[in-house]
Amino acid sequence: MPISDMQRLSPSMFIGVRGKGIISFGSGQPDLPPPKEVLSCAADYDDFKYGLIAGQTDLREGLAHEFRKFNASKDDFVVTNGASEALDLTFRAIGNPKDKILLHAPYYYSYKPLIELNHMTPLFVKTDKGKIDIDDFADKAHEAKAVLINSPSNPTGRIQEIKTLKRIEKITHDLGIPLVSDEVYKDLIYERENYMLSGSHVVTINSFSKTFAMCGARVGYLYSNDRSIVDKAIELKTHASMNTNVLAQRMAYYALKTPKEFVESQVKIWKSRRDIIYEGMCKLGLDVWKPEGAFYILPKVKSPRDFVWNMFKKHKVITYLGEWFGAKDRVRFSYALDAGKIEEGLKKVETYLSGR
Amino acid sequence: MPISDMQRLSPSMFIGVRGKGIISFGSGQPDLPPPKEVLSCAADYDDFKYGLIAGQTDLREGLAHEFRKFNASKDDFVVTNGASEALDLTFRAIGNPKDKILLHAPYYYSYKPLIELNHMTPLFVKTDKGKIDIDDFADKAHEAKAVLINSPSNPTGRIQEIKTLKRIEKITHDLGIPLVSDEVYKDLIYERENYMLSGSHVVTINSFSKTFAMCGARVGYLYSNDRSIVDKAIELKTHASMNTNVLAQRMAYYALKTPKEFVESQVKIWKSRRDIIYEGMCKLGLDVWKPEGAFYILPKVKSPRDFVWNMFKKHKVITYLGEWFGAKDRVRFSYALDAGKIEEGLKKVETYLSGR
Repeated sequence: MPISDMQRLSPSMFIGVRGKGIISFGSGQPDLPPPKEVLSCAADYDDFKYGLIAGQTDLREGLAHEFRKFNASKDDFVVTNGASEALDLTFRAIGNPKDKILLHAPYYYSYKPLIELNHMTPLFVKTDKGKIDIDDFADKAHEAKAVLINSPSNPTGRIQEIKTLKRIEKITHDLGIPLVSDEVYKDLIYERENYMLSGSHVVTINSFSKTFAMCGARVGYLYSNDRSIVDKAIELKTHASMNTNVLAQRMAYYALKTPKEFVESQVKIWKSRRDIIYEGMCKLGLDVWKPEGAFYILPKVKSPRDFVWNMFKKHKVITYLGEWFGAKDRVRFSYALDAGKIEEGLKKVETYLSGR
Repeated sequence: MPISDMQRLSPSMFIGVRGKGIISFGSGQPDLPPPKEVLSCAADYDDFKYGLIAGQTDLREGLAHEFRKFNASKDDFVVTNGASEALDLTFRAIGNPKDKILLHAPYYYSYKPLIELNHMTPLFVKTDKGKIDIDDFADKAHEAKAVLINSPSNPTGRIQEIKTLKRIEKITHDLGIPLVSDEVYKDLIYERENYMLSGSHVVTINSFSKTFAMCGARVGYLYSNDRSIVDKAIELKTHASMNTNVLAQRMAYYALKTPKEFVESQVKIWKSRRDIIYEGMCKLGLDVWKPEGAFYILPKVKSPRDFVWNMFKKHKVITYLGEWFGAKDRVRFSYALDAGKIEEGLKKVETYLSGR
């Protein structure tokens, strides 16, 4: 990267970048491999005809079974190119130019561009250490065409309190506006079970990427009991990308069959890494909020752009600029690395901060 | 399908639909299998981390080699979820709400919805039997933000004359507007070599789906020498879907290595099928334009909606409504079937037309 790139740092410069000696706290993806059943099903797969736009029937039936508590049917799902496409299709299905979408900052870096790309405007609710101010939410929801919630959050790692989530469900229900809930980290919570937002007005966004370590396969989905949203998303997808890769859907189907222990053992690993990075940053005297889920932490640093640039150029450590996430005085670390690498990275942060 | 569905017939009802006894002239996909190298590379693939948003380096280098006549570089390409996403990204990158896009009817059924989905308006150039009226084109191009050409055409199977294509190149160049050329059927022409539209203002849309019989894998790409369009498309894709499935890109990389004979032998098969269906329809007295490429034919029929509905319900033959393609007095047949099935289907059409 030439030096002039410092001013135009962007996530796409780092996504997929790997190299010897690089320690990446950048892109948010598990370093662990996918379950072996997921890998082995590719070997004899040979049917590369178009699939159903909504997604393969067996996969959607499997998802309906996962969501049986909510009386889900296979027709409530659209399988997508990752959660990203699920979100894009949802915004395209529910909004029109100039509509406002209410969300909480700091936010996943694609939210704002996706909203703006669809010619809509983001509206931000007040937060304290990543937690939503529900009174401010209640005020602003009146102006919104739809609401977007992300708990556990990328980039804060924070979860919203269950009483907050219940109030959000009710407020949006009473207003009759869609509640879009990005729950891609639902399986990676260290403090309690996930509370899944639900109701006839909810669109749940989810993914196989994080839980099953298959980010590059790009399989996500949206789930909604509102048939008009599901039908519209299918119609849009017919034109904008057609079916999601059929082999990736097969892999996702096998992922659903993975024993629960796979996920449980992963959560233990993530929790121990969370402890290492959180305690390490506290020791360095950094201002951080304790992550409760996902695998991100968002410390405050002086001159974040210099920090990201120099950590990469001088120390080969990739971190992401907080500005991309609506947190301009912070930087994001993904701790999807083994414990040794996390500690090595923390030492380099210490070196940088001490000005050596 | 309940009878009420007759009024809301749509492509998504048929895409991916298969069943015993069904003869599908519907979805446009090769019935032949992909090259064996493409299938076998999946067996030991195990790297499902995020890939580069623009596409894997080896695949883009392979594409640059394919386009070496045009001095292409790997940085001129964005690998996408099929040609559909390449088109959607292109429209999003070049247009704004209320812009007009000039195209020719009959058109591929996704063009109009994709343009409208991006809040733009389609503008249609006059055609005669699928061939562009270049004087009308020259007039209307002044109003357009960009132009979209599709030769060989889905659904007509017609190609544009080389002198027409050269004039289109020049007119759009002189006006300084992007010329988007969907050439997904470039390898399937029966009358001459493909004439690839080129120039600094051209965005070429292409796909592995048709040439290598891998529609369900969803790998396409856009190619442009205009770095601002390429960069914008990468930025949009970062948020809207991220990398294209990494294993599918590996398959596409192997597809590029397939010996030329693979494609040549396929073209021979398609040409013989073209002859069967074209001559068969002429014998039935149908008004048809001789297909010169791709694998579609677009006969005129009375009451097309009744035709499509009854052919499916009574004869288990899937055809597509011409209305979806801007040809309301016609129906589209894809002849991506073996010769025996085409003849069987033609007999059923004869039975239907004779009112038996």
